[in-house]
Amino acid sequence: MYVYGRNVLKEIINAHYPVKNIYFTDSKKTDKTFKELIELTKKHKYSFSFAPDNVLQKMVNVSKHQGVVIDIGKEFKYVDETILNNLRENATIVILDQIQDPHNFGAIIRSSLAADANLIVIPKDNSVEVTSTVIKVSVGLAFRIPILKVTNISRFIETIKKHGFWVYGADMSHNIYYETNLTGNVAIVMGNEGSGIREKVKSKCDALISIPMANNVESLNVAVSAGILLFEIFKQKSGR
Amino acid sequence: MYVYGRNVLKEIINAHYPVKNIYFTDSKKTDKTFKELIELTKKHKYSFSFAPDNVLQKMVNVSKHQGVVIDIGKEFKYVDETILNNLRENATIVILDQIQDPHNFGAIIRSSLAADANLIVIPKDNSVEVTSTVIKVSVGLAFRIPILKVTNISRFIETIKKHGFWVYGADMSHNIYYETNLTGNVAIVMGNEGSGIREKVKSKCDALISIPMANNVESLNVAVSAGILLFEIFKQKSGR
Repeated sequence: MYVYGRNVLKEIINAHYPVKNIYFTDSKKTDKTFKELIELTKKHKYSFSFAPDNVLQKMVNVSKHQGVVIDIGKEFKYVDETILNNLRENATIVILDQIQDPHNFGAIIRSSLAADANLIVIPKDNSVEVTSTVIKVSVGLAFRIPILKVTNISRFIETIKKHGFWVYGADMSHNIYYETNLTGNVAIVMGNEGSGIREKVKSKCDALISIPMANNVESLNVAVSAGILLFEIFKQKSGR
Repeated sequence: MYVYGRNVLKEIINAHYPVKNIYFTDSKKTDKTFKELIELTKKHKYSFSFAPDNVLQKMVNVSKHQGVVIDIGKEFKYVDETILNNLRENATIVILDQIQDPHNFGAIIRSSLAADANLIVIPKDNSVEVTSTVIKVSVGLAFRIPILKVTNISRFIETIKKHGFWVYGADMSHNIYYETNLTGNVAIVMGNEGSGIREKVKSKCDALISIPMANNVESLNVAVSAGILLFEIFKQKSGR
């Protein structure tokens, strides 16, 4: 799988994420920030080579690769469920129930790390996966937060309840998000762009929380909703 | 300009927005929600006709038109600056300084109406405009909130200051958004996806406000940031 972009490479190196090879464009070897990236790559002993722009473009099928394409091997490395034993106290888990849009997923990854969430969970089926577009939209932050793929979201919710998590579904409800105590071990479930959280998954949640809206608007973009809820959790956990 | 989608048509009718013609697919005339849409169109005396799917597809260049294409005439109807004389007390203005991505713009329109903002402002140059993609992403809400295009953002900020607005730029700052009083007549300025607010525009702001972030993440997706700030303003103005 090929991923691309300068920020993406920086985050890969930051995260010491293992890759097969890094391809730099051969047309910008003298560019200053570019030289620094190559130095960083050398310093961390990553394998790299140079290639013409049109070869890079063919690898990733986009022109805005910024002169950097990274071969990260067969698939993005998801974590497994044993991570639940290693989460810190007062952890935050973000569960995405069948999100479809890579831009939404990428933006949610970015917000999750920024709001100090500790794990993102997606279902194996009917969900966007971590693709090169998702990684690009996440500005490479997908390499810095654990992402877990599970067979069954409902069963996963039961599992984390046993680990002491309180699970909130983002849905129409009388519980206003900023009037709800979101400290401690907490998970939020965000639903599909069109249809929201599936009924079966919703029934597993401890409570539903809602963002009050004006002008009879029914819902927000899911990445925006997730951002609002995640930063409320972050604020409350910071003791504000 | 052709726009498309069922929600988009609903919002056009809700807003009594004048259009040239509405084209329905001729393949779904018996579909229930579809019939209701046609009834609504008749009731509000909009002109409409039927056309084959492939004709609709050619008009909008996408396949997911949901059987509804609307010809809204030459250009989307922006408001003019006289709107400033008709804003309510304690109004909220959203100023977008050279946003490029139609998905971001559409999501911000949706959040703005949902958070009870009263006006969205974009610059004439180097900015995404209200296109059919923007309208689709806004789920048609672009027809329900005034959008103004100005030649010069800096000068516009000077104008609204005279109208009693306090102008906040979203940028790195020591002023944390939820510790800042955002009631009264308030405007927020959101910057370009890559480079943020231009220096000249920033210098016109009364203050900068910032969303504190963990893990050295430098910024969020601009639609997410806008959503977080807009819903903080909405919350404060609701007296919570």
